[in-house]
This record gives sequence, C-alpha cells and structure tokens, in this order.
Amino acid sequence: MKEVLAEIITIGDEILYGQTLDTNAHWMSEELTGIGIKVFRKTTIGDQEAAMIQAFRRAEKDVDIILITGGLGPTSDDRTKECLARFFDSAIEMNAQAFAELEAFMASRGKTLNTLTRKQAELPLRCEMISNLRGTAPGMLFKRNGKVFISMPGVPHEMRGMMTHSVLPELKKLFDLPIIYHKIIRTAGIGESWLAEKIEDWENALPSNIQLAYLPTFGDIKMRLTAVGKDLDLLINETDLLVEAVIPIIEKYIYGYDDDTLESVIGRMLKKHGQTLALAESCTGGYISHVITKVPGSSDYFEGSVVPYKNDMKIEHLGVQRETIIQYGAVSEETVREMAEGVRIKFGSDYGLASSGIAGPGGGTEEKPVGLIWLACTGPDGTNVRKMQLTNDRMVNIRFSTVAALHMLHQRLCEKDWD
Amino acid sequence: MKEVLAEIITIGDEILYGQTLDTNAHWMSEELTGIGIKVFRKTTIGDQEAAMIQAFRRAEKDVDIILITGGLGPTSDDRTKECLARFFDSAIEMNAQAFAELEAFMASRGKTLNTLTRKQAELPLRCEMISNLRGTAPGMLFKRNGKVFISMPGVPHEMRGMMTHSVLPELKKLFDLPIIYHKIIRTAGIGESWLAEKIEDWENALPSNIQLAYLPTFGDIKMRLTAVGKDLDLLINETDLLVEAVIPIIEKYIYGYDDDTLESVIGRMLKKHGQTLALAESCTGGYISHVITKVPGSSDYFEGSVVPYKNDMKIEHLGVQRETIIQYGAVSEETVREMAEGVRIKFGSDYGLASSGIAGPGGGTEEKPVGLIWLACTGPDGTNVRKMQLTNDRMVNIRFSTVAALHMLHQRLCEKDWD
Repeated sequence: MKEVLAEIITIGDEILYGQTLDTNAHWMSEELTGIGIKVFRKTTIGDQEAAMIQAFRRAEKDVDIILITGGLGPTSDDRTKECLARFFDSAIEMNAQAFAELEAFMASRGKTLNTLTRKQAELPLRCEMISNLRGTAPGMLFKRNGKVFISMPGVPHEMRGMMTHSVLPELKKLFDLPIIYHKIIRTAGIGESWLAEKIEDWENALPSNIQLAYLPTFGDIKMRLTAVGKDLDLLINETDLLVEAVIPIIEKYIYGYDDDTLESVIGRMLKKHGQTLALAESCTGGYISHVITKVPGSSDYFEGSVVPYKNDMKIEHLGVQRETIIQYGAVSEETVREMAEGVRIKFGSDYGLASSGIAGPGGGTEEKPVGLIWLACTGPDGTNVRKMQLTNDRMVNIRFSTVAALHMLHQRLCEKDWD
Repeated sequence: MKEVLAEIITIGDEILYGQTLDTNAHWMSEELTGIGIKVFRKTTIGDQEAAMIQAFRRAEKDVDIILITGGLGPTSDDRTKECLARFFDSAIEMNAQAFAELEAFMASRGKTLNTLTRKQAELPLRCEMISNLRGTAPGMLFKRNGKVFISMPGVPHEMRGMMTHSVLPELKKLFDLPIIYHKIIRTAGIGESWLAEKIEDWENALPSNIQLAYLPTFGDIKMRLTAVGKDLDLLINETDLLVEAVIPIIEKYIYGYDDDTLESVIGRMLKKHGQTLALAESCTGGYISHVITKVPGSSDYFEGSVVPYKNDMKIEHLGVQRETIIQYGAVSEETVREMAEGVRIKFGSDYGLASSGIAGPGGGTEEKPVGLIWLACTGPDGTNVRKMQLTNDRMVNIRFSTVAALHMLHQRLCEKDWD
C-alpha cells in the first residue's frame, strides 16, 4: 500500500515572529497520524502571496494532502483565500450556502452582517465549501490530479470542529489508508545512550514496518514504537511481542506505558495499596509537590509537604536534629535522611521523600559544589538515599532531581511485597 | 538595508506525528526577531535523509541563515549530522575539542564514555564546532556562499544555552543587522481585551516603526514594544517617551519591565526591605513555592511553605481552627484566611500567602463548583482575601491562581509605606 502523505501549512506573521505558539499543527499531526496519514512536513509562512504560492506549489509536488490553517479573517492582512483562488485559477463569488450559514451563525449570537463579515461568504468557484459551525470563515476543499488542498481558519476551536466533523471523515473516504499503531514504553533512571546500548540487538532486529524513537526529558525517556500495516490486530500482536521481548532487558527502568507518567503510576500504586505520601523539599522547592498534585485525584494518597527553606524549619517542622545540621550541613546524607523520616512521622504517611542540594547558580563550595543533590526515600522498609552531581542550571537541577526522586519512590513501591 | 532572512528547520518524527509539541521554533523565532533577523519560514520534517537534503537545499536558496534543531542524539534514528556532512560534502571525524568537552561533561556527572556517547564527538571536518555546556551533542556551524547553517540539539535547555551563549552573538557578528530595540511592560490583574481597550488611543497613535504585541500567559500579560531603526539612542528615547505616556493609564497593573517576573520583583522588594514570606498552598499544590524558589537567591527572603492536602494538616501545621473547617469547609474565605495567618505565625515570616480551592476536574458541588478558588494575603497590615471562579482545567486553575496570588502580594508590597 502506498503511503498517504500530508503537509500542514500554517499561515500567519504572528507565528513566524514568535508572538503566538502554534498548537494547531501539533494537534492536526496527532489526528492525521491517528488515521494512518503520514505527516511528511510542516511549514509555517507569513501572509505574503509569493511565499504562499511557493509553498502550495511545492506541497502539491511532494504530498497527497495539504492542510492549510490561518489567513481567513475578513481584514486585508489575511490573504489565504485570494492566494488559493489564484493558485487554482478560480474566480471568487458569493456562495449561497455559505451566506445562509453565516447569517444563521450571526443571528444565533444576536448579530447582523456588516460589509466585512459578508465577504466571509465569498468563495472560489472551484472549491467545495466546508461548514464552520463555530465561526464565520468557512473551510475550502480543492481537488486537482488526485491531490487535496483543504483550507481552515486558524482559530483553534473552529479548526478542531471542522477537522472532526468534516475533514477527517472526508479524508478517510478519499484515500486508502494504512493502519498505524503506537506503543510507548516509559523509562526513568537511565540515560538515553545507556538504554540504547542495552537494547541494541533487540532494536537492530526490529521488522521494517516497526520503528523505534527515543524521546527524553530530564531523565525520563519515552521509547516509542510505531507500527504500520493493514490489520490492527496483527499490528497489536506484533508490537506486544516485541515489548514482551524487551521488558526483561530493561525491566528495572520501565515504569509504565503509553500515557503513563511517573507521578500517575506512583499515584495508582499508592492508591491501590492504600498507602500515602508526604514530601520534604528543600532544593526542589515545591516542584515535586506540584508534579504529584497536578494529577487529578492526588488528594487520595498525598498527605502534603513542607518546603523548609531555613534550617530552623527543618528542625521545627520535620524534627531534624540540630546537631545533624551542625555536624554535616543541610546538604548531606544525614540531613536528607532525617528530613524524609521526619516528614513521614509528622504527617503520618506511609512513604516520605526528601531533597536537599545546591540548586545554584550560586551557593556552591569546593566541598559541596553547585549541582550536588541528596535525595532520600523512606517507607515501612527503611530509608535509602541517593547522591547526584548535576548541572549549574537551577531549573535543570530541579527537574532532574524531581524525576530522580520519583524514580526512587517508584522502585521502592515495585520492590515492596504487598501480600 | 537588506533584510536578513532566516529559516528554522525542526527535525524529528516525534514532532511530525504530534507526540511532542515543538516549543523550540517558537522560542527561536522570538530571539531572532529580537536581534533584527526576519524569520521567513519554519519547516518541520522527519528523520529521513531525502527530506532533510531537500529542505536544506531549498533553505539555502531562499534565506541567509538556516537554524536546525533535532536529530543529533547518539542513536541510529538520529541522522542530522550525517545529512549535513553529505550536504556539505564533508567527511566525519573525531573532533579533539569536542571529545575533550564531552569527556569533561561526562566526568562532571561522574560518568564515563561508552561507544555510542563517544560518537557524539565525531563531527564533519567542514564545520566549526559549537560547545554544548548542557549536554553531549555539540552544535555545528557551516558557511557557504555567504549563507550560514547552524545545527543544534533538540533538547530545549541545551538548544537555548547554545543560542544564548554562541549562536546569537555569532549571528550579530556575521550579519549587518538593523537596530532593534525592545521594551516590555509587564502587567497582571487585568485581561488582554480590557487592557487593549484602556490603551486603544495610545496604541493607535504609535509611530509606524514601533509595533506593540500582547503576550499573555495565565493572567500575566507582556506588552512588547518593538522599535526598528538605525540609531539605538534615538529608538530608546522614542520608546521611553511612549512608555512614560502609557504608565498613568494602566499604572496599577504594571509590575515590572523587560526581564522582570512577578516572582523576581516580589523577591527584590522583600529583600530590599528585609521582609520574609511563607506559603500555605492547598489547591496550588506547591506551584507557588516552585515559582518563588526557582528565582536564584530566593532563600534570602523565602522561609518555606506547607502544602496541607488534608484538613488535619491545616489544623496541626497551620493552626487553622477545626471549627472553621467544620462550619465553612476547607474551601472558604474563613479557612484560607486562617491558613495565611497561620503560616505567617508558624514560620515567623512577615508576609503569608494561602490558596484553597477546587482545582478539578472532579470534586465540585453545586455550591462550590470546580474552579472556585480562594486566596489570602496577610502581612503586618492585616489580611485580604480574593475569590475567583476559574475553569474546569486543573493546570489552568493552578497557573492562574498562582499569578493571582503573587499579584495580590505585589499590590500589598506596593501599597506599604516603607518609611
């Protein structure tokens, strides 16, 4: 089966100049991939005719489906409709159906048409109109030599409505699409190149219709398998077998699959076993708490946390011994251990996590340089600690320590014999 | 002066397939625009050689500067380096400087090199190496016929470091750029359309070489003035006069300028007056603490925080009256007030901030729907509270409440008579 290729063309100066973050192209990619259309390229250009015509011409050569967003507003800086009319050698005229829908849309909002808004119902004769249930600019569909151009508004909820109700169903009818199946294995506690080294043989033996990608963020690595074929059940089977084969090699690093996150998996495990968690965060400054509590329903297992930025607070609110801090310092194995054990007792939780380190960029010494982080995890089976030497970048250190701390807790929950 | 044009080429299947939202291109656009380089086009392609070569060839024809991110990982799915070597007809060899920096980077993390990681130091002979202080893949700079190709890693913090330290300074040297002057006015506590309405006359009277953009994020709006010309002093003068003219119209919403953030401005004010802050965060779950502590040096004025996810903790660790919670509920004016006042007393801080609300998506009732948030700010001059009805989206609610809480504190610090 021939791959069906698409290009997404986003039009708008505001995106080129970094004033608007384009989330449309991202969402459209997901949707197209989901129905087996391969996104070959995404292009963003400004509102100039020359750039548009050039992009349309190239797209028509390279791909089967061209999805265009933006530049459909009624004001003079929006020129997509005129460019498409020129590209398809078509006159623009008032479209009766578009006009009726526009009038109805405006009436439903208690508004009447003005000259500018009326123009929204004028369309190239050569195109099929696509209804816009959520706004004033209709979509346009052009066909030429087996290629399809579709133009949609840039307003995200209008574009999404049009994609869902009209464009995706239409593309499924027009093209003979393959089935695509994604499976994601989620790992933590190992770097990308070490992971790749461990599974090299397995990766080299992947069949040609299944591709692997590594997607790392701050010590958390997604391994994504993409399988392409004609039979969904077959693809699922094939992929599942591959996943089963790789699990024994990297089992201790795998924490979940697909949409799992470290925090959601930990949450599920804690909830399942009726266990609770409390945190004492010094160098991570509340970030672990945020990551835990951004999960809906986290109040079921999260007792709370203390961010003790001053030593007195570590002593008073967590029960750390003053002598420990004096003897070993706040950033030390001994202190972080007492912080974790202290918050567990004070909050009456089953598990406790603690961080203490020099987040930077200042505050380092020769003995305790910036980036030195101590983490502790405590629970019914005792306490373990971990020392890390990270970077000079405060945010990077916070993010990396957070993943590392959650990974420690996850390991503990996995090792626990729950029976 | 001839415009200097750039194209941003993002490489990675994961972006094409919609699994990763590309924020790199957006950030790079802002930075390039900031130094007077016009972004002509953004292109995203997959990791296939043919697509890359085609994109490089076209970019070389259309623009002066080509910035490439992604595809530099050590694994076999990353092919950018090989493609660039082919495009520039260059052999790949071990680069001594890159190897030394790689070794030092790994050593600083207490790690040694493996075969895959070693490969990161191999570079096309034809390129100039760009140091990567935050990761293992060096950048590459190629010059040909007055055009410049620069390849950087796709990991955002690595790319940003490289852009800031090497790429932007180098581009300023290589090209004759117009003078661009940016002035940012930072506001909070007012919506974008209300702000725009208030300053409509002022905005309409802006000269043609000065443009205004609104850049809103969760209740925090940057108004960015971009002035283009040939004489920096003249541009600064012109812009400063415009800023002075708009201040009286929106003074109560302005909290800072340029790189200021609410948290950095608050930090500066607290430090200057020798005041301290403590937080009691229920619905914001640690996010305000994170925002405060991600500012370097925040330990000078931040005492710490409690995230009391359970009612008992509000009582025990913050001194909230059990009767208050029973009578009014945890999400109420009375409770949030006692939380703020309690954390101020317990931590001995000058100011206290507290949040309590239904972050969602579950947990709402008819009387207290999802999105209902109470905030309290307390200090030497008493306590004030604020009620907000936000959205059904948990993260949106957390981010909006955080900005609103910091804005409350900022207002208090501004109103205080410090003499």
